Amino acid sequence: MNFGINLSFAIKRWPEPPVWAGLVRETLGLDLVQFTYDLLDPWWPDEVRRPMAAEVRKAANSQGIRIESAFSGLANYCFDGLLHPDANGRRASAEWWKRAFDVAAEVGAKASGGPLGGMSITDASDPSRREERYRGLLEAVAELSEVAAAAGLERLQVECTPLAREIPYTVEQARRFLKDLEGQCKVEVKLLIDIGHALYQPLYGPRARMPEWLNGLGRSIGAFHLQNTDFQSDSHWGWPDSRGLFDVADFARDVCAAGLDDIPAFLEIIYPFELADEAVLASIKSSVAHCRREYRGEKLEKHTA
Amino acid sequence: MNFGINLSFAIKRWPEPPVWAGLVRETLGLDLVQFTYDLLDPWWPDEVRRPMAAEVRKAANSQGIRIESAFSGLANYCFDGLLHPDANGRRASAEWWKRAFDVAAEVGAKASGGPLGGMSITDASDPSRREERYRGLLEAVAELSEVAAAAGLERLQVECTPLAREIPYTVEQARRFLKDLEGQCKVEVKLLIDIGHALYQPLYGPRARMPEWLNGLGRSIGAFHLQNTDFQSDSHWGWPDSRGLFDVADFARDVCAAGLDDIPAFLEIIYPFELADEAVLASIKSSVAHCRREYRGEKLEKHTA
Repeated sequence: MNFGINLSFAIKRWPEPPVWAGLVRETLGLDLVQFTYDLLDPWWPDEVRRPMAAEVRKAANSQGIRIESAFSGLANYCFDGLLHPDANGRRASAEWWKRAFDVAAEVGAKASGGPLGGMSITDASDPSRREERYRGLLEAVAELSEVAAAAGLERLQVECTPLAREIPYTVEQARRFLKDLEGQCKVEVKLLIDIGHALYQPLYGPRARMPEWLNGLGRSIGAFHLQNTDFQSDSHWGWPDSRGLFDVADFARDVCAAGLDDIPAFLEIIYPFELADEAVLASIKSSVAHCRREYRGEKLEKHTA
Repeated sequence: MNFGINLSFAIKRWPEPPVWAGLVRETLGLDLVQFTYDLLDPWWPDEVRRPMAAEVRKAANSQGIRIESAFSGLANYCFDGLLHPDANGRRASAEWWKRAFDVAAEVGAKASGGPLGGMSITDASDPSRREERYRGLLEAVAELSEVAAAAGLERLQVECTPLAREIPYTVEQARRFLKDLEGQCKVEVKLLIDIGHALYQPLYGPRARMPEWLNGLGRSIGAFHLQNTDFQSDSHWGWPDSRGLFDVADFARDVCAAGLDDIPAFLEIIYPFELADEAVLASIKSSVAHCRREYRGEKLEKHTA
């Protein structure tokens, strides 16, 4: 079982590396994490960032935790990123990614990733601007892959998002995107599939199912995000949650059937900032227990069959 | 009536200054805005930021829109800010604020503001660390006020948040905070009260009401944020919304009764990124119409009484 946790649960509450590392290993019993840039903004000046990243690496090491990747969080998702309508905005985003690669390398991760960006409504509604943004994105990713390689990373992890103004947002577009990047990149480019994105019904319809994504993208998938959702929002809830409808055991079955059970799956829960700390702690514990039981349970069945 | 809108509704969808400025003036019929740093991250390199800020100023001017202030959005709220447990984290936040003052001045605002930061659970649960963080915050704000003055700003606008780990979060703490800053600052320090924060029942109890905040803080209040809420979350919903319970006309009555009807109130709605663009446009239009009718209606009654 390759089950870990994105550190989104820790932001603002347990930002100290020894504190979240202790929670992850001792309280949650996990040894695999995806670091979130919401704990250490790549924009922070080098002299601030480097010692903080070193603390992250040290705390993870001392708890025997592997930081598989570093990933964009809520903060960077607030901006249009590499698809910003203004060339200056796109330049700012490219600079953010370069700095993010440094952070990823400094914390000891081998990959960095996140959603790449969103088009403005104005750009997205003009077919020639859409194409221009798309071409520009391919160039930007190819250029960034060189910087990632130079930083010592092995992989760029591109998240699919449930917005038609973002890239990539469908199986078909993700395949075209990877095909158009073939031979252009200095590190491997893989996809991250968040189940709450992939099954968002207002965009993909009530019949959206995981096998379409798993079979359509196969080994192009580098990681998963798990969350509880009602399929009507990008919910990022935990378990139990009376509103949530996502079945982890079903997902595990689908992943095994697609032969992707070695791909890491990271629980990514985003709690409201104002939610009581005790409620957050109880929820993250029960959510991890739920996912381990449902996800590992199913996998063990397969392996012992 | 001093009613305006925070540009939070525009992020990722209408980021181009002429586009949001056209929406604000022509579609929503407003001429007063609070700029959000979610449209232009103060971290962006100067050579990128300056031309983008100049575009903001130009678009607002050409539509006759006044940018009353520039304010922290979702991105900066993801971090612990000036209350980060690590001195390096606090240093990064101070640098963010200094850069934010430059952006505020560049877009033509006279004030900059936002929530100041949050303590980690570890720090907040230790009385001596709490006090140390509080003292450090006072020093940081005093120092920042000099930078704000040098940038040409007139006011620092501190947002009260509904978290006991943040400062300030109660009427009493806000009063102490302002008192402790007396004579220390080079620009005026005022409070921003978000009604969804002030009436958050899980923290303040089911009897939380606006007059307590309005009468307790009086002229220390520099601005309001309006949102629709169920009082169980920091909802930031619009109108109509079947979940929402906030009565704008009641609020207007309370504001008039407290003699604070000259204080600007900014509608601040935060839409899910994945929500359909047409739904967002319809909601922001109906929300502005609702607030103008309920808020202005009440005020006109008073003025013509």
